[in-house]
Amino acid sequence: MQLPGKMKAIMKAKPAEGAELVEVPVPKPGPRDVLVKVQMTSICGTDVHIYNWDSWAQGRIKPPLVFGHEFAGEVVAIGEMVTGFKPGDFISAESHIPCGVCFQCRTDMQHICGKLKILGVDTQGCFADYIALPEVCAWKNDKSMKPESACIQEPLGNAVYATLAEDITGRSVAVMGCGPAGCFTVGVASGAGAGKIIHVIKHEFRREISKKMGSHIIFKYDDPQLVDKVMKATDGVGVEVVMEMTGNQLAIDSGLKMLAKGGRFTAFGIPSGPIQIDLSNGIVFKGGRILGINGREMYKTWFKMAGLLNSGKLDPSPVITHKFPLKDFKQAFDVMRAKDRQSGKIILVP
Amino acid sequence: MQLPGKMKAIMKAKPAEGAELVEVPVPKPGPRDVLVKVQMTSICGTDVHIYNWDSWAQGRIKPPLVFGHEFAGEVVAIGEMVTGFKPGDFISAESHIPCGVCFQCRTDMQHICGKLKILGVDTQGCFADYIALPEVCAWKNDKSMKPESACIQEPLGNAVYATLAEDITGRSVAVMGCGPAGCFTVGVASGAGAGKIIHVIKHEFRREISKKMGSHIIFKYDDPQLVDKVMKATDGVGVEVVMEMTGNQLAIDSGLKMLAKGGRFTAFGIPSGPIQIDLSNGIVFKGGRILGINGREMYKTWFKMAGLLNSGKLDPSPVITHKFPLKDFKQAFDVMRAKDRQSGKIILVP
Amino acid sequence: MQLPGKMKAIMKAKPAEGAELVEVPVPKPGPRDVLVKVQMTSICGTDVHIYNWDSWAQGRIKPPLVFGHEFAGEVVAIGEMVTGFKPGDFISAESHIPCGVCFQCRTDMQHICGKLKILGVDTQGCFADYIALPEVCAWKNDKSMKPESACIQEPLGNAVYATLAEDITGRSVAVMGCGPAGCFTVGVASGAGAGKIIHVIKHEFRREISKKMGSHIIFKYDDPQLVDKVMKATDGVGVEVVMEMTGNQLAIDSGLKMLAKGGRFTAFGIPSGPIQIDLSNGIVFKGGRILGINGREMYKTWFKMAGLLNSGKLDPSPVITHKFPLKDFKQAFDVMRAKDRQSGKIILVP
Amino acid sequence: MQLPGKMKAIMKAKPAEGAELVEVPVPKPGPRDVLVKVQMTSICGTDVHIYNWDSWAQGRIKPPLVFGHEFAGEVVAIGEMVTGFKPGDFISAESHIPCGVCFQCRTDMQHICGKLKILGVDTQGCFADYIALPEVCAWKNDKSMKPESACIQEPLGNAVYATLAEDITGRSVAVMGCGPAGCFTVGVASGAGAGKIIHVIKHEFRREISKKMGSHIIFKYDDPQLVDKVMKATDGVGVEVVMEMTGNQLAIDSGLKMLAKGGRFTAFGIPSGPIQIDLSNGIVFKGGRILGINGREMYKTWFKMAGLLNSGKLDPSPVITHKFPLKDFKQAFDVMRAKDRQSGKIILVP
Repeated sequence: MQLPGKMKAIMKAKPAEGAELVEVPVPKPGPRDVLVKVQMTSICGTDVHIYNWDSWAQGRIKPPLVFGHEFAGEVVAIGEMVTGFKPGDFISAESHIPCGVCFQCRTDMQHICGKLKILGVDTQGCFADYIALPEVCAWKNDKSMKPESACIQEPLGNAVYATLAEDITGRSVAVMGCGPAGCFTVGVASGAGAGKIIHVIKHEFRREISKKMGSHIIFKYDDPQLVDKVMKATDGVGVEVVMEMTGNQLAIDSGLKMLAKGGRFTAFGIPSGPIQIDLSNGIVFKGGRILGINGREMYKTWFKMAGLLNSGKLDPSPVITHKFPLKDFKQAFDVMRAKDRQSGKIILVP
Repeated sequence: MQLPGKMKAIMKAKPAEGAELVEVPVPKPGPRDVLVKVQMTSICGTDVHIYNWDSWAQGRIKPPLVFGHEFAGEVVAIGEMVTGFKPGDFISAESHIPCGVCFQCRTDMQHICGKLKILGVDTQGCFADYIALPEVCAWKNDKSMKPESACIQEPLGNAVYATLAEDITGRSVAVMGCGPAGCFTVGVASGAGAGKIIHVIKHEFRREISKKMGSHIIFKYDDPQLVDKVMKATDGVGVEVVMEMTGNQLAIDSGLKMLAKGGRFTAFGIPSGPIQIDLSNGIVFKGGRILGINGREMYKTWFKMAGLLNSGKLDPSPVITHKFPLKDFKQAFDVMRAKDRQSGKIILVP
Repeated sequence: MQLPGKMKAIMKAKPAEGAELVEVPVPKPGPRDVLVKVQMTSICGTDVHIYNWDSWAQGRIKPPLVFGHEFAGEVVAIGEMVTGFKPGDFISAESHIPCGVCFQCRTDMQHICGKLKILGVDTQGCFADYIALPEVCAWKNDKSMKPESACIQEPLGNAVYATLAEDITGRSVAVMGCGPAGCFTVGVASGAGAGKIIHVIKHEFRREISKKMGSHIIFKYDDPQLVDKVMKATDGVGVEVVMEMTGNQLAIDSGLKMLAKGGRFTAFGIPSGPIQIDLSNGIVFKGGRILGINGREMYKTWFKMAGLLNSGKLDPSPVITHKFPLKDFKQAFDVMRAKDRQSGKIILVP
Repeated sequence: MQLPGKMKAIMKAKPAEGAELVEVPVPKPGPRDVLVKVQMTSICGTDVHIYNWDSWAQGRIKPPLVFGHEFAGEVVAIGEMVTGFKPGDFISAESHIPCGVCFQCRTDMQHICGKLKILGVDTQGCFADYIALPEVCAWKNDKSMKPESACIQEPLGNAVYATLAEDITGRSVAVMGCGPAGCFTVGVASGAGAGKIIHVIKHEFRREISKKMGSHIIFKYDDPQLVDKVMKATDGVGVEVVMEMTGNQLAIDSGLKMLAKGGRFTAFGIPSGPIQIDLSNGIVFKGGRILGINGREMYKTWFKMAGLLNSGKLDPSPVITHKFPLKDFKQAFDVMRAKDRQSGKIILVP
């Protein structure tokens, strides 16, 4: 295949808010890389941090950088040591780039590698026509998969890993948060046969999305009776599983209170600073546990996600609300940043 | 409530084939028992063994015995030390009666108690208007549950325990056998979001039941290409989970061959004698495992089953094919024993 | 056996500091109780709270109460429904009294029963010549066991449960705290073949106890270089397991910092109020987990403890530093409450 | 470092019994390989199969082949893409060579890779002065480790993986078989704090080795009272864990009979053909499980083994009975093949 020399890309060109549409060389794959023509890409909250140039971004990102890390596309070239992929493969990508030799990488925890790099954060990303990535980060999709579904598997995989970190089938669950991560989590819980699925939401726009994803009961996060209502809905036992997808202090407090004795509190949301918790009553006396979730298991999570998607038990499409051409990225970021959150997942098409 | 002194019951009256409809005293509950008015009861394969008076039955059963152990009904009286149930409760029953003090009972394995007794096998059963059973064996149903579904939870629970013994969500699975246990297993796997569900059946009558329960692919058990077809359907990997619900040598052989490396072989079916297995290639080199399943976890299994049933993720009704008045039990047993197996689960109504 | 009508006991007689030696009737066992002649009993931190009459005690304890819950002794009488014990049995006791019928009791979590009562806190205790307790709380010891070892199994069991909550063999571990719970934990980790055992202590007196229990490295809790030293001792990886036995804010902070990515933080210590934690860096990004531990698994923990004690892999005797006649309880409490903690576990002999 | 061009090696030169000492070129490491100067190497049962040229060897081995796969040595050169090792590192090797891209390799099961190759069986081995091996198979030892202990870690790792496949601390265990695998297993069980360790042996020579490794009770495998004695030694419960290290029909039969209800039967030994088992009574009714063990987890097993070895909880030296110069390999193989098994592990020094 004849590849072009240049491509368009969205670049954080300088240390300031915003980004630019630029023309850059098509990347060359190294010996263990695959080169992919991007079919669709989607925007992560992390991309908004980079776009906004907030304090986290200022400390981590080194412009110029083509960012973006959620995508699906076709392999168009491979490095000479690649053995698992070939041109024509329809792939998505794991954004966590492991070193391969540290303690974590050698004990089935590549996703939290001791020297972890992130695609589109620490390396050139996918808001572009092409991206080169290490073979270890490539994931082959079933060719029948819809490109929209294939595209958003990286964030969907967070929900799959978080929800299935322990068994959920037949258990009561409360999902805190209605961003894409929260809505995906409702879908995974439903697909895996959770018992009663209680969704605690903030934005009214997401109520319909939540229902389509499979929630049974919806409460508002600032309802002063929230914990009482959850206790009542669970016959006084509390929920066996809390999925905390916000990082918000109030949600964490409520979640620990509504957790059943012996229950699982899944911590995926990222508080921006230290939080207060009642460890004694929330965890120790309850014999409960807090599971920290970061990334996706490489690749247990992806195989399970493929099983759920291919069987039709999980359909993420209600969460995908917008699609823009890549060049209209500014409009896309504005929709995503709007205060009233009249959006779910937003896709960009190069 | 005023209880009658006498009731009708189906009794294995003497050591020979068949059973009799008799009138016996309504049982008196002991201090830790509940007395239940039976609303519906269903026939287990074990009951057929007792009815047929085969060699197993001759060695285990001591006539006269009112048999039967699958049922749902209403509590009408309780012993003076009962604390978890009260008259009016709608209950089903766990058939395994644990001693409460052995090693297994004290380490969360009551269902395989070292001195295990079985309801309706070692004690008076439920093919009757009333049954008295230990509180430890009673399970409270949601009052909204259909009595047919409530009635068959004991055998359904076998499938719930067996299928969910390890995680199944998103995984490929082959279910060997199309009796009620096999068909229930397909339903549980589907409700829990299994990936590809392959059902290996014997009787054509169950093909439609299998589809309704959620299987994706159906093969016949004696297809000489069976293993090859399963390998092809799983991209050469094999199935991650085999559910062996028959005890049949051929099914066990096929199951071990189609099992993926690192996979789970769930042994629920009961061979009538020693079997031959290729332990080296079937399990050791594969790094696979065989999980023996007996009964239901008391009561983890029941709580998960309630979650699946109440959320609608699991509907056992396609497996229930017949309903007879209790007095017509002979007709019911004849349908169940028919060579062509034109039946699923059969219910008797007192 | 002829039992006396009266016995001596230590009673919290009124809502104030201290306790009194009194004469009270020997308790009568109920139908499901065993009556035990106390051979040895030991003092728990909880007993000190009761003795001191602090705010926790004022909210929970209802005088008059014979307190104490750690002991070993001989069964001298049983209720008529008791099946697992008989006079002459040498027993110790689980202090958690489960209701037997709640969600937790029915799902292998009796130790965190939804309606949990505690022996010697919510019921009459063992600082006495005799105690009656429910059969469900009795544990039969090997008759060859030393009474001192048998006596302190309740607190030792906390350490067994906490340490073995997940696998520890060959793993690096840091134990925070040098009270009896911390020292026992070092012993259990050593007996189970933990890799490098780092003990973080406060009181110099316990340094020798720690070494005898099997620690490899000892640091002081307020060493400003503590985390750096632990990281260095683990080749920069951090410890795979933190055992937090203090409830102290500083220990929790240090523990979360020294925890390896993917590691286990075991929360046994009970903070007296809400604490601050860096959930993002301490748990979420690390993919770590916090396990709340309360009580002992009934009776998985006890069986494992018996295995460790009977094989000689675990010897708790270095932690037992004092023995007093029961009547000298005031002296015992004073030793235990001394600021410089020149004691470990203290035994009282009726 | 200046490397010689030639080295001595033991080669299966032609398809017949025996082997030859030859001179061959020192291998060149590929881009992802490390080259190691062999300090010590040991003989596996697999090497005896190759030496004897039995039917398994005839079907698998393609002469000429330098065989051997257990060793320790120093890295002397690395390929240009190697990042985890450098010259001077003291290493041992995992013998399982994974493909890196199959289902098993991508789901934490590299050790049972779908396209598995074995070092010294499918590739050139370590009975030589030097060996080149893929970085993925190299394991860095603590420099303080004795070379004999470092050398035998591959077979010792089988025992570590098999024994610690589930928790063993405080549990009763029966180890079937007294070859190096069986004796190592006793040592791992002891180091991990198993409760009662029963060793079922064949050869009297190994009795003393067994005691030194930590067994509490020794029975002979052909004792007609074997199962009864084990039941008696476990108060009628049976052993919670059977470690089957022989592949022998009689040992498998006995093991299944002595297994406690709910217990673990660990299948490591490799029967030479199909075996007969009583699946119903041995596994299904018992609610037991059979775990197939092959290789070592890469590298969970190795990290745990390092923890056990470095802490001194596991000392494999009693199993190492002989040491020969590499050139005297014929004498070594004769000792190892002797009918009366007056040997344990045998080391060769190049």
